[in-house]
Amino acid sequence: MHSQLGEFELIQRFFKTGSEAMLSSKNPTILLGIGDDCALIKPNSEEAIAITSDMLVEGRHFFAKANPQWLGHKALAVNLSDLAAMGARPIGFTLAIALPQVDSSWLEAFSKGLFAVAQQYSCPLIGGDTTAGPLNICITAFGAIPHGAALKRSGAIAEDDIWVSGSVGDARLALAALQHELNLSQTDFQTIEARLHQPTPRIELGIALRGVATAALDISDGLLGDLNHILRQSQVDAEIFLDQLPKSSTLQRQSEAIQNQFSACGGDDYEICFTAASNRRDVINDISKRLALPITQIGKIKNMQSLKPTIHIIDRNGTTLSASDTEILLKSFDHFA
Amino acid sequence: MHSQLGEFELIQRFFKTGSEAMLSSKNPTILLGIGDDCALIKPNSEEAIAITSDMLVEGRHFFAKANPQWLGHKALAVNLSDLAAMGARPIGFTLAIALPQVDSSWLEAFSKGLFAVAQQYSCPLIGGDTTAGPLNICITAFGAIPHGAALKRSGAIAEDDIWVSGSVGDARLALAALQHELNLSQTDFQTIEARLHQPTPRIELGIALRGVATAALDISDGLLGDLNHILRQSQVDAEIFLDQLPKSSTLQRQSEAIQNQFSACGGDDYEICFTAASNRRDVINDISKRLALPITQIGKIKNMQSLKPTIHIIDRNGTTLSASDTEILLKSFDHFA
Repeated sequence: MHSQLGEFELIQRFFKTGSEAMLSSKNPTILLGIGDDCALIKPNSEEAIAITSDMLVEGRHFFAKANPQWLGHKALAVNLSDLAAMGARPIGFTLAIALPQVDSSWLEAFSKGLFAVAQQYSCPLIGGDTTAGPLNICITAFGAIPHGAALKRSGAIAEDDIWVSGSVGDARLALAALQHELNLSQTDFQTIEARLHQPTPRIELGIALRGVATAALDISDGLLGDLNHILRQSQVDAEIFLDQLPKSSTLQRQSEAIQNQFSACGGDDYEICFTAASNRRDVINDISKRLALPITQIGKIKNMQSLKPTIHIIDRNGTTLSASDTEILLKSFDHFA
Repeated sequence: MHSQLGEFELIQRFFKTGSEAMLSSKNPTILLGIGDDCALIKPNSEEAIAITSDMLVEGRHFFAKANPQWLGHKALAVNLSDLAAMGARPIGFTLAIALPQVDSSWLEAFSKGLFAVAQQYSCPLIGGDTTAGPLNICITAFGAIPHGAALKRSGAIAEDDIWVSGSVGDARLALAALQHELNLSQTDFQTIEARLHQPTPRIELGIALRGVATAALDISDGLLGDLNHILRQSQVDAEIFLDQLPKSSTLQRQSEAIQNQFSACGGDDYEICFTAASNRRDVINDISKRLALPITQIGKIKNMQSLKPTIHIIDRNGTTLSASDTEILLKSFDHFA
């Protein structure tokens, strides 16, 4: 890690203060935090370490002039969402950030959002890098999982149920309103805005699903597009019941086309999509109650019918959508579009 | 980790191929590489994990139009240098990269440089993120260290010797030539160019120094500036013998002022500066012989004389430089200058 002089020492001290406040509670997993060539962590001997890295770029993942507090929240939350999808308990994270200039009010707000999430999930900042450059936020997050308990994408088998947590499509709806693709009342917008800017990583759910889910991932690019990763890695097909996709009452006030498109392919949901044997339904419903988090069965895993894993979409009449109609629906949110 | 569609699937496949080629050799520490929500690693139960993250930005850490193969080399090497400074054995790394466009020849050359270093140090790519944006390369690297053996910055004590590996100042000399600060013959430039573009992480040295060095770091921002971090964290002073700083014959052909400035404060050296008790000199000289790497004693650690750790610079006549002369010399390489 580079040690910058001058203005950047100020920034580093800023982040270091937030980090030390959390590490002072004597986290036994973190042996060494910010300030040396490396951070040092040591999980329990029975645990593996989960690692995920996401890079957020201005104009791509967030608007120029984005609220820095929300940005700090989201930058860490999307990484914790990946840990959740693996069933990992957060350990800590590194932050590498390029800043176009040193703006202390921006940094204060960004840190506030960042450390609020870090505190909530007991996930301290343990190292990183700061530099000048076009705004770019790269967080690498670390979690611990009992050896063998990780929720991979490759374990789904035929006749497993497919589930999704919370509701899907609201982040896309908020984005559509911001981009003037559609009109939303002020009240409706305020109800769902946080889904876009301040996603909730489903850490407790991921941990609860250890030994229950056969495969899992978090939905960042759209439910169906992401589900495809499970299908490809598990070499299975899926049937999805389109009208079962869980939607907020706000989204339910939109046209059916928008409801379908946004819930199936919206992106930025950061809910967990997972598969489980059908004899685990009671367990899953109990988890849902305990966490006060809706978990909805939205389909079934099927044996592969062709050489390529396929999602068969069933509409409200029980009719399977044609390949071309499915194709249209599958046009998923693409950060590089 | 996001999964991009379209062009970015091509890029991801590119990196994945290089990653899988290395993981096929069945690395027992890597339980899961690219392709899931997280990578999974599991060190031996006696080992801690060292983590370091560096972000390289165009126009700041490298020139626009920089040779992409060198860039791939350097991006990983500077992170491995941090692992070396900790005494860690490399385990793997994640790569998050923002690219302004998809340029397959650029990617091929970048990957070639990246994976050559990865292969040399048995450090596979295990995950990451790709996105569109101004060119930005963020690598987070992981290493393993026997619990308690890490070379921290905080262990130097009075009367320890101060050592540095290899030679210092050549990277700064190459940069000066490229920036037309001075003229260098074609031959001289070619002799030292690799020191700037393709640094050698001193991994074997770091491992050999476990149990020998009392403190260590790698020199990225200039020898004296970086040494200050050891002094601050160990709460000690240092005496540095200016004419003992190891310099290449190329640098020795420059003026004395340039020799002093570039060797003491040049930056981008990626050598290891460490401290050790004076009864370890034979051990250190043996390590130097075994690794065929010069290791030079350049000073002594002293008890702190004032409230602030200080470097006392001794010139060739045995005279201690004044504070103002030292100040001038200490104007270290600053990425945010």
